[in-house]
Amino acid sequence: MAGTEAIGDGDVGEEAPANEGFANGYTFFRSFRHEPECFVPTFPPLQNDLLLRTARGEATERTPVWMMRQAGRYLPEYQEVRSEHAFFDVVQTPELAAEVTLQPIDRFPLDAAIIFSDILVIPQALGLEVEMVSGKGPHFPNPVETPGDLERLVDPDVDDTLGHVFDALTLTRQELEGRVPMIGFSGAPWTLMAYSIEGGGSKNYKQARAWLYRHPEAAKTFLQRMTDVIVEYLVGQVDAGAQLLQVFDSWAGLLGPKTFRTFALPYLEQIVDGVKAEHPDVPMIVFAKDAPYALESLAETAYDVISLDWTMDPQAARLLVGEKAVLQGNLDPCALYAAPDDIRREVQHMLAGFGSQKHIANLGHGMHPDHDPDHARVFVEAVREQSEQMRTVS
Amino acid sequence: MAGTEAIGDGDVGEEAPANEGFANGYTFFRSFRHEPECFVPTFPPLQNDLLLRTARGEATERTPVWMMRQAGRYLPEYQEVRSEHAFFDVVQTPELAAEVTLQPIDRFPLDAAIIFSDILVIPQALGLEVEMVSGKGPHFPNPVETPGDLERLVDPDVDDTLGHVFDALTLTRQELEGRVPMIGFSGAPWTLMAYSIEGGGSKNYKQARAWLYRHPEAAKTFLQRMTDVIVEYLVGQVDAGAQLLQVFDSWAGLLGPKTFRTFALPYLEQIVDGVKAEHPDVPMIVFAKDAPYALESLAETAYDVISLDWTMDPQAARLLVGEKAVLQGNLDPCALYAAPDDIRREVQHMLAGFGSQKHIANLGHGMHPDHDPDHARVFVEAVREQSEQMRTVS
Repeated sequence: MAGTEAIGDGDVGEEAPANEGFANGYTFFRSFRHEPECFVPTFPPLQNDLLLRTARGEATERTPVWMMRQAGRYLPEYQEVRSEHAFFDVVQTPELAAEVTLQPIDRFPLDAAIIFSDILVIPQALGLEVEMVSGKGPHFPNPVETPGDLERLVDPDVDDTLGHVFDALTLTRQELEGRVPMIGFSGAPWTLMAYSIEGGGSKNYKQARAWLYRHPEAAKTFLQRMTDVIVEYLVGQVDAGAQLLQVFDSWAGLLGPKTFRTFALPYLEQIVDGVKAEHPDVPMIVFAKDAPYALESLAETAYDVISLDWTMDPQAARLLVGEKAVLQGNLDPCALYAAPDDIRREVQHMLAGFGSQKHIANLGHGMHPDHDPDHARVFVEAVREQSEQMRTVS
Repeated sequence: MAGTEAIGDGDVGEEAPANEGFANGYTFFRSFRHEPECFVPTFPPLQNDLLLRTARGEATERTPVWMMRQAGRYLPEYQEVRSEHAFFDVVQTPELAAEVTLQPIDRFPLDAAIIFSDILVIPQALGLEVEMVSGKGPHFPNPVETPGDLERLVDPDVDDTLGHVFDALTLTRQELEGRVPMIGFSGAPWTLMAYSIEGGGSKNYKQARAWLYRHPEAAKTFLQRMTDVIVEYLVGQVDAGAQLLQVFDSWAGLLGPKTFRTFALPYLEQIVDGVKAEHPDVPMIVFAKDAPYALESLAETAYDVISLDWTMDPQAARLLVGEKAVLQGNLDPCALYAAPDDIRREVQHMLAGFGSQKHIANLGHGMHPDHDPDHARVFVEAVREQSEQMRTVS
């Protein structure tokens, strides 16, 4: 990673050093990515660093806002791309991933872009086949059913197998032209293990949970395999242009305090520590969905931001995490089905709960395919306007 | 309800008054159920009232234990009944419901029986068709999609539409011969509304959650309709022989603190207050699954027992609910996939978390169809042995 430390920390006003060959940008970067000593991608200066400053715990003039799954099926322009390209084709083609990543940025006054990808690229990199079945979600034709199946896993060359995400990040950040920072992300080991064992979505993920009791040592082996890849993957994302990282433990809510401490927390810690060893200044967000029991212990890790789903009371969460952590969240995505004035009232309630500082406004989970884009706009604009007003008043 | 107050409070040693005609028991009761002044069913004296004493907050010599969904597909003898009868046929035929209710009691040293039924009998009573699709779960061919669909609901005669459950309770309690107390139950209004709108199980129940924001007044109408029926239904269950009641808000975890306060809590309160107005001595359990945010407010209601799912830390829950409430739970059902010695260790951890009093041991959710009955036995026996030891030591 030598020579790349400066990339992606996203300081406003950081001018790109002169770099011959950058004119033909993305193609050039792609071919040289494997030789970071020879080439460091440079990017236009960042014009809006509100999210990064907030994530670092600095006092800010307004609450930054973005939306999980802000690029996606609720946008007609995304549907248009998908009408011609399969889901994983979009993920694996940097030009397409960049295009859909920028769609919500072109449409709404958001404070961040998040790279269009999927958490299941990690199991894919480990050699597991994953299909996206229309209307059903992810499907593993050959899930990891027994500990013996772990022998099927490969040790991936992260640059080879996940280079498309790095390329997508670099290209998108160039095309962003510094408007907002670029978020990279990964699934967390437990969540990825749950999908890999269950073979897709599931009512209660009992096969995966059964492993924790039946095969605890094999589970740890599996989790460690994924952790090692995730660290390299996230470091690579920062090298490629990501300025902030989020780790999604979407199925943390299936665990309890004891199983979380054993099978989730140590790996989440390894990830933040491993990434920060390479990129100490890149803020990192952890989202352990449906796991309020995890808040206190997450606050003791090196994650800068703790993301809350909509079931958590912001004030109760603040009591648990203490004053230091920045919180992210947490409007119920279903609140966007309400009439615009009701959405504004819900935003007001949310902002009042979090207070005017150390908060990144977001939904408590991702956008739904049947959301009205105009209602997403109401949410984003309401956060901007109301959070500015909160500071004027106070 | 005049004349029936004495039924079902389950005091040990309460002798059945002489009652001519009771000899031919169940058939007699069934024909007289509509005239409670003329006939009050009487039952054999209760020999094990440990659960009832614990639920009332009394100090006990051992921790009582039962398992949610203890009658069900994991038992070969249940499978045998189901090989000849459809799910709702078993629910609607008192002799069959009684038979499967007693199966786990005959097999394991449990401290309670819970009537075999389904929470969806309430939407059925309101006129909604519900099928149980093998391997998929419940399915509503005509779900409640819009507020206009509420006009399709009927005002049921609870005795007519749900009398089969009352009959099953009476028959089962007779056949129980006082071995353990009989638990009755109902789904909670929000959970039943979620199923009725979604038309069955769902990934995120977003149609139902959308109602809370799009049609809040219609949602309240729907919830109130269900609440009124539930109160009458639970009162009727006690009249028929239930000695303890549990209200299952299985989808409380889809709500947040604010929507819970508006759309769940008021109806849960009406239920406990309405039932206790008729039967003040019947202990009532509330199970708001995946809703730790709800614990504090539930502790302020008249429910005697608060049931915890496996994601909640017993000690953290105790801090939230205070000293008064009895807690129930909460072993991860998936822990029953572990080897027997590991199950015993998990039980030890659970019992240590709850302490030796004011605790009803249970799973954090229901048994799974692929559980090994022998492992259920390990759980039940471990609770009995270890909780007795805890009291000897302390």
